[in-house]
Amino acid sequence: MYSPLLFPVRLEERKLLVFDETTLPFKEEYLKVEKLEDALDILAKMKTRALGQVLLFFYSAVLFQKEISPEELAKRFKAIRPTFDFELLGQILNKQAKSGITLEEAVKNFIEGLEQKRKARAKELAKDLPSKANILTICNLSGELVYLFEALKNMAKEAIFYVSETRPYLQGTRLTFWELRKNKIPSILICDNQVASLMQEKIINCVVVGSDRSTVNGDIINKIGTYALARLAKYFGIPFYVLTQYPQDIDIDTIEIEERQENEVFMFLEGVGSLEYEAVYPSFDITKKEFITKTYEIKAN
Amino acid sequence: MYSPLLFPVRLEERKLLVFDETTLPFKEEYLKVEKLEDALDILAKMKTRALGQVLLFFYSAVLFQKEISPEELAKRFKAIRPTFDFELLGQILNKQAKSGITLEEAVKNFIEGLEQKRKARAKELAKDLPSKANILTICNLSGELVYLFEALKNMAKEAIFYVSETRPYLQGTRLTFWELRKNKIPSILICDNQVASLMQEKIINCVVVGSDRSTVNGDIINKIGTYALARLAKYFGIPFYVLTQYPQDIDIDTIEIEERQENEVFMFLEGVGSLEYEAVYPSFDITKKEFITKTYEIKAN
Repeated sequence: MYSPLLFPVRLEERKLLVFDETTLPFKEEYLKVEKLEDALDILAKMKTRALGQVLLFFYSAVLFQKEISPEELAKRFKAIRPTFDFELLGQILNKQAKSGITLEEAVKNFIEGLEQKRKARAKELAKDLPSKANILTICNLSGELVYLFEALKNMAKEAIFYVSETRPYLQGTRLTFWELRKNKIPSILICDNQVASLMQEKIINCVVVGSDRSTVNGDIINKIGTYALARLAKYFGIPFYVLTQYPQDIDIDTIEIEERQENEVFMFLEGVGSLEYEAVYPSFDITKKEFITKTYEIKAN
Repeated sequence: MYSPLLFPVRLEERKLLVFDETTLPFKEEYLKVEKLEDALDILAKMKTRALGQVLLFFYSAVLFQKEISPEELAKRFKAIRPTFDFELLGQILNKQAKSGITLEEAVKNFIEGLEQKRKARAKELAKDLPSKANILTICNLSGELVYLFEALKNMAKEAIFYVSETRPYLQGTRLTFWELRKNKIPSILICDNQVASLMQEKIINCVVVGSDRSTVNGDIINKIGTYALARLAKYFGIPFYVLTQYPQDIDIDTIEIEERQENEVFMFLEGVGSLEYEAVYPSFDITKKEFITKTYEIKAN
């Protein structure tokens, strides 16, 4: 079992390749990053995100180290996607660099460790899930649900994933549902507004989500819609599990929530010119620890 | 101010015309019903719904009275859209018919009264809303939000509608947002999964929804997603108002919830053949009275 989203950005013989998530599930293709501007453009257009943008940052830091420092690169990345903490990634690199290794080695260490850490936490989570797990999820966890399913299978646990489509960008439909089905993992696609009904009918017995940011006290920021799942899960007594990485000692409310362009909300109105569109589209929401059953962390090196 | 959705089905010189909601907001066109089968086909394809299907039933009862009785017609309609109580509409007609008037007159009485009743309840609701009303709504209320806005304006109250797009069929985007914008009524389109965030940030201060079915004890059935809004509104202390009609003395849990075809959930996956799709798509959900602040009823004659 494998998902291309587990390693969505690759450095192969000094060629930086980015798996284009925006053409999924219709086309599986890699984009080449030749200049720093290519990387920034890919980031802005969300052609990669989540783990992909972490890898894109690290590899760009290596590839373009003669023209830009990790700190400066972090600032450029953060200006484009303000909710994600690229500065922390810059600090991770700097810390390693101070210990005398090259940027290349620092990035290699980070990425090698990552795969094992991700498998380990998938296993840890699998232990906590019921023997017949009906798992609600939203957005995309960069392939980690594939690890989770394998871990559950090895424990002789059954699982079905209920994938919330995750409007407006449809990461649930286009990425998660696609990667699960590709691996023949039982999965059912639902619309975001079906969640409360499925919980009430006891069809869902656990929720598993990722997080773009997290704090040491247990709060998280994740894709818009996560907070509603958490609130509803709490009400229905359904455990709500979160995969986090690099939790920070800060107040979650101080983190800027990215507002993305309205046109993603208006995709169904293309061609209707006269309505003077207006939409609100925060890209993420905050879920406080009181709604989270348990987090499974990957810590900074 | 006017919305074609206020009278989506019309009988003009014995020609039955149905406003095609499925081509909105791109085309505004009326379909002709010449045979009973046309009416049933329009119903199955949801080319009209809500008030439209009530009117379609009544006018079909008149137009095709020589070939089918109101009771039999109700059964045919209900087989197609099981959650809506066409049998009640049949009973309303029968009751009037017994009082000695023709089917034509019975339908005419019903429809004439309806407009006034709808305006009156919009006014009643407007009284209860705050002077700066930030109204969250879902699906489509067949033009009644236009009446509501007029009533609010006459009371010198300000209003903005936050329209939840209502996946998968997008009645919020295609119908409500369209009819509000057409009338230059302030309105903002949101994705269904943004609701909890907007409530938490106190951007929304009331919720107004319609209902497909309702009971005398105050429970309702409405478009899937309504129950989540109600639960979240209760948590955030936001009043939740419902427009109902013909509440019945029955147990809401005994009403069949229509399951619609999966392909509406899969609209974004067209052309991806190999994923062996599976989706769950109940068309409605149940909201019990404990989550409802107040209902504004239209009763059967």
